[in-house]
Amino acid sequence: MRIPIIKDSPVPIYRQIQQFIAEQIEAGILVPETRLPSNRELAASLGISRIVVANAYSELESQGLVYGRRGSGTYIAQQYQSLPGSLRDTTSSDWPLWQQELLSHAWHASHQELDQLLGEAANQPGLISFAERNTPDPLWPIEDIRKALSAAMRSGQDDRHSLIGLGHNNLAGYFPLRETIAQILTTEGIPTHPEHVMINSGSQQALSLVARVLLKPGDLVLVESPTYNVAIDLFRSMDVRLLGIPVDEQGMQVERIEPYLQSSPPRLIYSTPTFHNPTGTCMSGNRRRQLVALADRYNIPILEDDYVGNLRYEGRVEPALKALDPGGRVIYAGSFSKLLMPSLRIGFLVASGPIFKRLLASKYIADLVTSDLLQRALREFISVGRYYTHLRHVSQAYRQRRDTMSEALHQFFPDARWVSPKGGGYIWLQLPNELSSDQFFHFAVREGVTFVPGSFFYPGQRTQSFLRLNYAVNEPEAIREGVRRLGCAFQKFSTSKVKE
Amino acid sequence: MRIPIIKDSPVPIYRQIQQFIAEQIEAGILVPETRLPSNRELAASLGISRIVVANAYSELESQGLVYGRRGSGTYIAQQYQSLPGSLRDTTSSDWPLWQQELLSHAWHASHQELDQLLGEAANQPGLISFAERNTPDPLWPIEDIRKALSAAMRSGQDDRHSLIGLGHNNLAGYFPLRETIAQILTTEGIPTHPEHVMINSGSQQALSLVARVLLKPGDLVLVESPTYNVAIDLFRSMDVRLLGIPVDEQGMQVERIEPYLQSSPPRLIYSTPTFHNPTGTCMSGNRRRQLVALADRYNIPILEDDYVGNLRYEGRVEPALKALDPGGRVIYAGSFSKLLMPSLRIGFLVASGPIFKRLLASKYIADLVTSDLLQRALREFISVGRYYTHLRHVSQAYRQRRDTMSEALHQFFPDARWVSPKGGGYIWLQLPNELSSDQFFHFAVREGVTFVPGSFFYPGQRTQSFLRLNYAVNEPEAIREGVRRLGCAFQKFSTSKVKE
Repeated sequence: MRIPIIKDSPVPIYRQIQQFIAEQIEAGILVPETRLPSNRELAASLGISRIVVANAYSELESQGLVYGRRGSGTYIAQQYQSLPGSLRDTTSSDWPLWQQELLSHAWHASHQELDQLLGEAANQPGLISFAERNTPDPLWPIEDIRKALSAAMRSGQDDRHSLIGLGHNNLAGYFPLRETIAQILTTEGIPTHPEHVMINSGSQQALSLVARVLLKPGDLVLVESPTYNVAIDLFRSMDVRLLGIPVDEQGMQVERIEPYLQSSPPRLIYSTPTFHNPTGTCMSGNRRRQLVALADRYNIPILEDDYVGNLRYEGRVEPALKALDPGGRVIYAGSFSKLLMPSLRIGFLVASGPIFKRLLASKYIADLVTSDLLQRALREFISVGRYYTHLRHVSQAYRQRRDTMSEALHQFFPDARWVSPKGGGYIWLQLPNELSSDQFFHFAVREGVTFVPGSFFYPGQRTQSFLRLNYAVNEPEAIREGVRRLGCAFQKFSTSKVKE
Repeated sequence: MRIPIIKDSPVPIYRQIQQFIAEQIEAGILVPETRLPSNRELAASLGISRIVVANAYSELESQGLVYGRRGSGTYIAQQYQSLPGSLRDTTSSDWPLWQQELLSHAWHASHQELDQLLGEAANQPGLISFAERNTPDPLWPIEDIRKALSAAMRSGQDDRHSLIGLGHNNLAGYFPLRETIAQILTTEGIPTHPEHVMINSGSQQALSLVARVLLKPGDLVLVESPTYNVAIDLFRSMDVRLLGIPVDEQGMQVERIEPYLQSSPPRLIYSTPTFHNPTGTCMSGNRRRQLVALADRYNIPILEDDYVGNLRYEGRVEPALKALDPGGRVIYAGSFSKLLMPSLRIGFLVASGPIFKRLLASKYIADLVTSDLLQRALREFISVGRYYTHLRHVSQAYRQRRDTMSEALHQFFPDARWVSPKGGGYIWLQLPNELSSDQFFHFAVREGVTFVPGSFFYPGQRTQSFLRLNYAVNEPEAIREGVRRLGCAFQKFSTSKVKE
């Protein structure tokens, strides 16, 4: 216990200790049945006599705040209720000025707004969420990952360089994992050398590191419109301007961008060409080639977000932008979070040229390195060949979930329009008659189903008639029931609009 | 395999496939004995006929690049040596202009310079490192952590909110872990409510998040001089100016700072008051009170880095700066990495007031959340009470390591001066006669021992006569032998200086 005592204070030390502990109890911080340090321990740690501590404790006991248990120690008494909120009750005028100023120039964190919206809905029992995962998934290879973790811990005891997590040439990640990732990417048509692979904590960190290295306030970034909402938050937090290029069934409308590149060239192009979030579309091969060629001609780096590129269940494979890169033009971000288990939080970047070392420095100042233990476990999992088996298994299950949602939408929500995605996990649904999904959301919650209103995904002007349904995080039965509720909610919603 | 084929190209598709694979083999990316996708798989994924794939493969076979194994598939042949370096041979003039520009305005990452210095030494067999850990430590509670990980995975299968890693009120971390941390801090004299605790990926991330929220280019930050080298890198990367306040045996010379606060107030005070890195000193109680009072008066936030505050083996405990905080003035960063096992990479922040929500948003755009699996495992480990047992065990072992180093220094390096630390893991050693530890380093490496030259820790003018010895990462036998080598190296070094 570190109690802030003042030795030359007019208040006796035993009294200082007694007051400190009493305040902790009254504030609900020291809860009933907590054992206090022994006289000896506390005296030693504060550099005072044991008698002083004994005096403080007996004062507390006479107040009824603590009681002694023979041979066991001193404990907080029961009669005081803990007041968990009491530390929160500082009113805003008590904050120092610098804290109050933070409120005035905060950037708008749309994910916090969304989190609040979903949080209010989440209390409802039996809620089915097409917004985010709210149940564990039987698809997760829990037992295999448990084994991989155990193997990683064992390898830590044997391997000289193990479990250290730091060390030369390891700042970019555990080298055997980088090798395995390079092999996987290469067989997927993205020729990759392990020394160009850098491990990080999920693809969001990849985006953040690239942004930190390349962007400064006022820069322009070209993005798809709509695009991944947390990428929008990231760019907004850096005071970067966004130029949104519309997406159609063939992905970003690349043929529209050249005039922008000529007039005010962006500092970065951010794109999710495969199973685009939120629309689920894939950029056509022609547009991919055109985008890489334009970026090359106008000297603009491309950040390719391939967060679920290999979660395809049908249709033709287009080359990754990185596969079309003549050298050092495209920075590629991949992830294992969606595929294996979100709580692993392992992703990777592929980049060559001078930027690699800069990204590495940026990672180091951000959080040194990603957990070596998780890296080893992941490598263990991948290298014994479970990866491809698992990928096939997951793709099949996701296809089934998509089919279930498609059929249910045809049956229960015939007015909606959507394009069936060929991979990933999202259906981008358009309401008829330009009805607003922001308004529809509240009707849906009342029926026990949620989604993400499409307006969260727009970098500029928000279109309201779309919504994003995540079918991947639910099993078929829940999908069917959720869509049924969605259909009910829509009938009530459209009836209410007619009445208006 | 994602092969970038162009359907309307004059080059036939089978030839495009053959050339792509041949290039991969020649570049050493597709290594011998790699199995190629089957005709059927590749044809389906590229949306072409199987005959086209068969033609490409038979071309490759006639070139001797691949061979077929009956009933098993097509494999890369042995005779081609892999050329692992071939993808790295792009000369710098080939990089796009934006990459070349990165080279010209790079900030100086001192950790990369240090990493290079240590990396060159690390190849030496039998090297003893007082710079960084290079062997696993028998102190690590490997078996307990393995059990905790298994329990965390099990809880993932049972608990409805488990292993999801996201969810309302969980953006700040796994709530039971936040509760446990709040309890530990409270019993250590830092009254903490769980809602003010935020989990992150080690204390470096805490520093980085606070810097991102509070600082902009040109701002002034007050730091100790010397101070933690990666904090210097972080601030430099943000174009922040640093004001270094000298450290003596009582920590930062707080009585010197008021004139600076009056003339050009810093935007942040960064301090490691307990077992300061690199000097190992503790700030006196009076200076702690004075620092918090000054920060309050001049409206400056304090970031308290308490990375090993509880790793004390003797001496009086001073209150944490956070314990003296009248409310919302001090942001506190703690870590479990040093205590348990560095590869866990779990740390936490304590902050109240409007900044908490901003830090949360900053964490989310940085990497969404820290691995839920690791958070659960850590909570499992702490809550069964192994934490305090382990803490006591580690403190005793570290004290022994420090004593071993002290005795060895007296015996083998009598000319050096140092103050014995009362906790943590560092001895800050001064060479006699203002000799340079940068120069001494090379003599030490030749004797098979390394350390971190003190010059890396200065935010401004670099003093060269100090060096940092990390005794915590070695066992007593290695410590004794390492110090013996250090003594030998110093004799040679000082002889060489006399000759000059």
